Amino acid sequence: MLLAVSQFESAFLNMVGTSTATFVIWFTGISGAGKSTIASIVEQQLRDRGLPLHNLDGDELRLGLNRDLGFTDADRRENIRRVGELSRLFNDAGMIVLVAAISPFREGRDMARELAGPNHFVEVHVDTPLEVAEERDPKGLYQKARSGQLQNFTGIDSPYEPPLHPEVHIDSTRVSASEAADEIVRTLISLNLIIK
Amino acid sequence: MLLAVSQFESAFLNMVGTSTATFVIWFTGISGAGKSTIASIVEQQLRDRGLPLHNLDGDELRLGLNRDLGFTDADRRENIRRVGELSRLFNDAGMIVLVAAISPFREGRDMARELAGPNHFVEVHVDTPLEVAEERDPKGLYQKARSGQLQNFTGIDSPYEPPLHPEVHIDSTRVSASEAADEIVRTLISLNLIIK
Repeated sequence: MLLAVSQFESAFLNMVGTSTATFVIWFTGISGAGKSTIASIVEQQLRDRGLPLHNLDGDELRLGLNRDLGFTDADRRENIRRVGELSRLFNDAGMIVLVAAISPFREGRDMARELAGPNHFVEVHVDTPLEVAEERDPKGLYQKARSGQLQNFTGIDSPYEPPLHPEVHIDSTRVSASEAADEIVRTLISLNLIIK
Repeated sequence: MLLAVSQFESAFLNMVGTSTATFVIWFTGISGAGKSTIASIVEQQLRDRGLPLHNLDGDELRLGLNRDLGFTDADRRENIRRVGELSRLFNDAGMIVLVAAISPFREGRDMARELAGPNHFVEVHVDTPLEVAEERDPKGLYQKARSGQLQNFTGIDSPYEPPLHPEVHIDSTRVSASEAADEIVRTLISLNLIIK
């Protein structure tokens, strides 16, 4: 019974405690870099700590909120602007937000950073050479882009601007998704966003 | 100590319990009808029950997520489409959603209802005669619309389509905001969305 009490208590206090310390973990990188995979592992680790969070996946948002948008530069900007605003709304609701989205332009990511507020935005660059991502091609998108079936594909005929000073830089050719997730959690601790 | 335990336990179970029973309370009506005021009272009553919720105010969203939109019919449709998608995202995150938005078109509200899922959408028509709302004119908007400074103003030069079968109909000339909130909470109970 004592154990049960302390479990309830700590889960409850965690929820209350974190509602004032929300932040955004923003995964950026080209298609196939492994953003969503790493984000899912981080999500699980934070959930295990009882932290209230929401995972906003760029691909999924394009099926709902952002389904009116295509892949031109202007539409990509608008896509990321909305994801940034959405992140703030979830932060306001007391939730930590994980975003996995190509978000190729520095300007859009910087806007999202500004909306999250100083020291509350953790930019994770999931860095993969184009040839590696294209070799993986988990969704067959690179093949479609190369054959001309997809236009404005990041890395092929649309640019990707890597972050200049990301909080975390993952070289996905050297570390596993699980190691990458561990590094992100260590960074959250060192930034005092979560408790060790 | 026993009391403290049961408080933590019940707050925690409430949170967990409701994460599978989320819903949307959608306040519709012309400007000045009292949507936000009633929504705030309902919000407080649900918070007092320990329920996780988020209040999406249409006016506030127009300063952020929807700030690219104006008030033409097309923009109003897109505005409400996004609020509907947003509501679903918050529901998915385990939160009850309160929306206060003029949302003049039946089609948009019905789309939001569909996104929320059957029996998880509570449409509240805050019904106020135009002359009463115009007399109140809390934000001075009717005056601006009448003088031509504002175009496409609902009730003046843009239509409002009242709900045909709202879950709650509030005649704001006959009941106070607080009485209206009580009626909404009673409806939530009778719909088995919250426990008495």
